[in-house]
Amino acid sequence: MNGAEALIQVLSDSGVEVCFANPGTSEMHMVAAIDGQPKMRAVLGLFEGVVTGAADGYGRMADKPAATLLHLGAGLGNGLANLHNARRAFSPVVNIVGDHATYHLPFDAPLTSDIAGVAAPMSNWVGTSTSPDDLAKKGALAIEAAMVYPGQVATLIAPANHAWDDCKKPAKPAKLSKPKPVTKAALAKAVRAMNKSGKTALFLGNRALREDALVQAGRIAAATGCRLLCETFQTRLQRGAGRVALERLPYFGEMAADYIKDFDRIIFVGAKPPVSFFAYPDKPSFIPAEHTELVILADVHRDAEDALTRLANALDAPKEPANVQAPMLMPIEPGRLTAAGVGTVVAKLMPENAIVSDEAATAGLALFPLTAGAAKHDWLNLTGGSIGQGLPVGVGAAIACPDRKVMCLQADGSAMYTVQALWTMARENLDVTTVILNNSSYAILNIELARVGVSNPGPKALSMLDLSNPTIDWVKLSEGQGVPAVRADTAEDFHKALKDALAHKGPRLVEAIIPSPGG
Amino acid sequence: MNGAEALIQVLSDSGVEVCFANPGTSEMHMVAAIDGQPKMRAVLGLFEGVVTGAADGYGRMADKPAATLLHLGAGLGNGLANLHNARRAFSPVVNIVGDHATYHLPFDAPLTSDIAGVAAPMSNWVGTSTSPDDLAKKGALAIEAAMVYPGQVATLIAPANHAWDDCKKPAKPAKLSKPKPVTKAALAKAVRAMNKSGKTALFLGNRALREDALVQAGRIAAATGCRLLCETFQTRLQRGAGRVALERLPYFGEMAADYIKDFDRIIFVGAKPPVSFFAYPDKPSFIPAEHTELVILADVHRDAEDALTRLANALDAPKEPANVQAPMLMPIEPGRLTAAGVGTVVAKLMPENAIVSDEAATAGLALFPLTAGAAKHDWLNLTGGSIGQGLPVGVGAAIACPDRKVMCLQADGSAMYTVQALWTMARENLDVTTVILNNSSYAILNIELARVGVSNPGPKALSMLDLSNPTIDWVKLSEGQGVPAVRADTAEDFHKALKDALAHKGPRLVEAIIPSPGG
Repeated sequence: MNGAEALIQVLSDSGVEVCFANPGTSEMHMVAAIDGQPKMRAVLGLFEGVVTGAADGYGRMADKPAATLLHLGAGLGNGLANLHNARRAFSPVVNIVGDHATYHLPFDAPLTSDIAGVAAPMSNWVGTSTSPDDLAKKGALAIEAAMVYPGQVATLIAPANHAWDDCKKPAKPAKLSKPKPVTKAALAKAVRAMNKSGKTALFLGNRALREDALVQAGRIAAATGCRLLCETFQTRLQRGAGRVALERLPYFGEMAADYIKDFDRIIFVGAKPPVSFFAYPDKPSFIPAEHTELVILADVHRDAEDALTRLANALDAPKEPANVQAPMLMPIEPGRLTAAGVGTVVAKLMPENAIVSDEAATAGLALFPLTAGAAKHDWLNLTGGSIGQGLPVGVGAAIACPDRKVMCLQADGSAMYTVQALWTMARENLDVTTVILNNSSYAILNIELARVGVSNPGPKALSMLDLSNPTIDWVKLSEGQGVPAVRADTAEDFHKALKDALAHKGPRLVEAIIPSPGG
Repeated sequence: MNGAEALIQVLSDSGVEVCFANPGTSEMHMVAAIDGQPKMRAVLGLFEGVVTGAADGYGRMADKPAATLLHLGAGLGNGLANLHNARRAFSPVVNIVGDHATYHLPFDAPLTSDIAGVAAPMSNWVGTSTSPDDLAKKGALAIEAAMVYPGQVATLIAPANHAWDDCKKPAKPAKLSKPKPVTKAALAKAVRAMNKSGKTALFLGNRALREDALVQAGRIAAATGCRLLCETFQTRLQRGAGRVALERLPYFGEMAADYIKDFDRIIFVGAKPPVSFFAYPDKPSFIPAEHTELVILADVHRDAEDALTRLANALDAPKEPANVQAPMLMPIEPGRLTAAGVGTVVAKLMPENAIVSDEAATAGLALFPLTAGAAKHDWLNLTGGSIGQGLPVGVGAAIACPDRKVMCLQADGSAMYTVQALWTMARENLDVTTVILNNSSYAILNIELARVGVSNPGPKALSMLDLSNPTIDWVKLSEGQGVPAVRADTAEDFHKALKDALAHKGPRLVEAIIPSPGG
């Protein structure tokens, strides 16, 4: 047994079932070891951002890590942006990054770089094996680090000679830790806060957004009349008709501040007090008002469902939750397609138990409220703000949940960053329907340009935000990678196209032409 | 004048004419400042790997830096792989990376990351502005760092408030340093080595590969009978009929070692003694034989042309160089297209003074020798081994040299990493003809798998190297981004398609279907 085989064995023994891979020469023994491990599925991505984003999506849905296999520092570099998003999503991910053989490093061959340095900014844990035997041991440590509740990014650097040299004995599987419960003091403080008069909000994030946790939140709302809020960009929100509904914090800082300014207190579970996404001249960074009392019941690393259950019970909350979402579908307005029109049709056609990967950017602002009363579904959001997440996360979600329909609601500009994800959808015949909301623009930047105080931008500035010269043909980009596609620019055509796509088990793409910011 | 305007002014005053950009909210004031600077061209890339690769290509051809404009740590992360290649090419590049306003950083907003940490592994210089006035001052320092001969990667981190706040006075333009000449001792040692009997090679890299430097190398060959070798992966090699020809070191380590094992001495100018690209079990990392004397006349940071001129003069070399390449074209073999067939046709049709961006991988091994006797051209290679360089470098070369034809000779697997480069070619109407050598495979890995010692790979391993399921349709990927394209699978059709493409001033793509490794 060589080091690579021992590593793949310990990954498998610890429950890792999937490896998203973009390997090179220095990872060939790892590829061979995966080949010999029948319990490990290998999924090829044609760019590392697809690989790491898929691992993020997988981690969100499976609540355990996939492995990635990446080619030295440069390959890891290509995957960093989606690891940033995964880290911000608290997704469990285990990266395996090949390196030159240790004795080869001093020669500074062309692909040599400081891999640990590349890994550090986007990893919660970084390890480098010191021997063939240590490789599998560090693999177990990486899984343990990735599984620190609710999830972390762990990166293991594997020199090629540790992969190919023999090792003496297999490593023990990872020992997984349990999430910490809330402290008694924090619980008592939250109970006292909930019992005070005035306006109270319960502000939820991460694992507090799962169905069972939300039932507890709904019980608390039933007992106290508090409002239920959630982060703007959720890792994974279980929502739809029949589930406890939340109010989503607005994206723009001043709107968010206005939205929560009247609360006397806010209690946080799985989330921290909100801050502005960007800084703007003369606008505050911290969102809550000064007079609002902020109470952290459970930070993101404490057991969220348990915290909410304890709080509900301490409040003698009724069994039945408040705020249960009623079914609600808006009528489809025929004619020229808009983002709202896309949302209306998506809400109507979304199958029960769908998984939505939302990177629709400006258009997403309309999609989210319009789908609130659709059939039950999971909503995955862009957590770290680095665009190019949506399609890869859809890939990973589809691998994690092969019996559920995945819908990628995807802005055109963002989609280009990891357009190669479509190829993996085709290769693996993933049950993903992608909707490209094509407004031929970085529309958000047209808004932000004014918000940061740039007045009268000239044509050169505006051209940096414009994707209409040339127009991107998403039907061709999709078909070119093996995913059948159609285009729609009316609500009627979009309805028909989406219905056809969803009826098919396998990847499909619908290009929805919506107005650009200029009209 | 705000900090952004002062920065763009000092860049412009220091000779920076182009900014390759993929900006976000935190860079909007930089976009506005570029808008107000008529001497600065802004070129949008739809992915940061396109932006940094284009800056590399521009730097190689212009011998001065372009700026890049990147969005925080995640955006820089997306650009790292091609910065790695640029660093290995010794290309001058100035990255400007926006960051949150300094007062916003402690709030750890979603896009916050350790940007200096992300930058460090692939940058020779990293600076962060400390005030609006300091931003432009650091900009001048960044240019000075980038212009350290022959070129370096410099990364400047620009907090948003330093861009939008007023500054007091403009900064002084960068003071550019001159390359160091060779030392007298090194020259004397090289002269002595050249005068010894036995087999001698002159081994050239980087700036020693320019036409004028090569004339001096050819004079030395004429005086001494030494052989002229060059690195496997050149930053920029000026070659073709009428120029001094070099022998290229083979790629695989054991072939390279065999190729140079009989030399009694090797003298290096602009290059260091070669090492194996990867480590392999039981194969040496260091290529030169133990008995071979290695003499460094000029490392990459010393003036290469000057070094060769001094050596030629010290040897009383004749004025006329030896080893001048005669025109040489192979007959085109009709029928099924192969990599060799592509090379034969490319050699015949290549216009005088073309720029070739070669990322043809395995197929490139055939293209290089077959074009040796073509019309004079510049050949740009993958310097750092991180694939996805070819198309972006073609973009940058075309911006730097608008009157020259650029030809991207590009493998299919590598092309996918930065496929978005085609869109920039279309938007800017760049005079680039791209040839995709499509063998539906990471063909090199099929070779490397055996070389690292994996025997009898199974179907799961082989599928990680295979791009034929589904087949990528490069005509659609190209047309979808606005670049007209055709496909050819015979030598006759390829000849016609390439001739048509080259006759057109503007971007074109020809997909050349060549056999996959399996046949």
